Amino acid sequence: MQYVLINNEYVTEDNAKISIKDRAFRFGDGIFETIKIQKSELKDYNLHYQRLSEGLDAIKINFDISALEKKALLLVKKNKITDGLLRVMITRGEGSMGYLPKKNILPNLVIEAFKLPNMVNKQYKLLVSNYQKISSNSLPVHCKLMQGLNSTLAKISAYENNYDDALMLNDKKEICETSSANIFFIKKGKVYTPSQDSSILKGVVREKIINSFPIIEKKINIKKIKKYDLIFITNIALPIRFVKEIYNEKQNLIWNFTEVGKSFEIFAEIKKLLS
Amino acid sequence: MQYVLINNEYVTEDNAKISIKDRAFRFGDGIFETIKIQKSELKDYNLHYQRLSEGLDAIKINFDISALEKKALLLVKKNKITDGLLRVMITRGEGSMGYLPKKNILPNLVIEAFKLPNMVNKQYKLLVSNYQKISSNSLPVHCKLMQGLNSTLAKISAYENNYDDALMLNDKKEICETSSANIFFIKKGKVYTPSQDSSILKGVVREKIINSFPIIEKKINIKKIKKYDLIFITNIALPIRFVKEIYNEKQNLIWNFTEVGKSFEIFAEIKKLLS
Repeated sequence: MQYVLINNEYVTEDNAKISIKDRAFRFGDGIFETIKIQKSELKDYNLHYQRLSEGLDAIKINFDISALEKKALLLVKKNKITDGLLRVMITRGEGSMGYLPKKNILPNLVIEAFKLPNMVNKQYKLLVSNYQKISSNSLPVHCKLMQGLNSTLAKISAYENNYDDALMLNDKKEICETSSANIFFIKKGKVYTPSQDSSILKGVVREKIINSFPIIEKKINIKKIKKYDLIFITNIALPIRFVKEIYNEKQNLIWNFTEVGKSFEIFAEIKKLLS
Repeated sequence: MQYVLINNEYVTEDNAKISIKDRAFRFGDGIFETIKIQKSELKDYNLHYQRLSEGLDAIKINFDISALEKKALLLVKKNKITDGLLRVMITRGEGSMGYLPKKNILPNLVIEAFKLPNMVNKQYKLLVSNYQKISSNSLPVHCKLMQGLNSTLAKISAYENNYDDALMLNDKKEICETSSANIFFIKKGKVYTPSQDSSILKGVVREKIINSFPIIEKKINIKKIKKYDLIFITNIALPIRFVKEIYNEKQNLIWNFTEVGKSFEIFAEIKKLLS
């Protein structure tokens, strides 16, 4: 039996329901975090906590998360999870049919904890998406907003065409990230990643790499992709993955990995760092 | 006692709950319509039906809506509503923690019907929003997506500063709409509205006006706003409203209504048309 925490109540999965008046259901009006559970502990909790705090501020939800870790760890224990994922969702709360929330609305907290599904760390084939990444001028996209339709549509299109993920560009055709992972580029022994102002998620794995390795943050136009030797993507579920090929919107191959000794050594070094 | 329809079941409001695994809750992955109930009938149902069909196609949800009207009318009857609003939500369905939906996922249908809240048809003060309208290159924003955070943040900011609504611009500083209404401009006897390719909602009231009145669709930059005599906004809940003043992001007055006989006559004519 798996439990889900809804506010202060640990309920069984089948009873884990929320009012249709919750604004996350109506409008995707909330924020979430996906945290790795390793040896029954929450990995890099401080980085997740920080991004969650930033996100709550950015979308103006007033909710005290100081007791979050304790509640989450109890759920991990109740669900007997050693290695898995924790998913924390905080919504603005219930009521009001229109966009303006009611005054004194109370946020809802939902936490899930489950075993890590089996994931194959294959070599990724990416398709440049027809769906432009939502601009940080429109939403605080550096946080994990419950606004996943842009990523969902991009990912569905990529899968329908037999690619592993979609590569998202901004309005200037600069590379942002995939539908669910940050991206890094290696060239002549140097490692690059799209800069924070390219409308990208402030990924926790990305942060960890930047904090422990010399990384150059840069705007990278899709036209310049040929320059790079090795490309990899990162997220919580599978920290680091190797990109094999990239195709443009018309499904023409625009980049593929060709054996480059030094770049591969750097990739292996970063991989080791994250293991 | 008010009822809510969830799939094929009419449940009481307090029991109107949905699984936390529903992708509308997780990601705002769904679509909705707000339809006016007038004399216990669904006003302009064909226009709403058409937009809903378009939206389901655009976000790749496969759901048969042929029985929707019948189900909705039964709810209107059960809730004893003569004049009010109907809210139809269709979500992609339940399951999968990531952006990629499960195969053979079954959509969820939720319908609410309630009396129209009391709304004052005041003269609107608009604030140009700091949140840029989400581009139609990122999402099919001409349909009513369950992705309301952009509008919500814009509306909260406007209200916090004592404005009635936020005026949303696109990346080229062209006027799109307010956080929840389409917008029209009158100048020297002619009526203008932002063209469909300016990332705007295909509003039902907007459609009705365009279908029955000579309207010029045009890209309108915020810098050119001074040219216009009279501005009004439209949506389902309160079909037509008069704009009194518009302020820029720095809260400086950039436009206000000044009595212009002919423009006001046209406004009155369109208002009559919608009554």
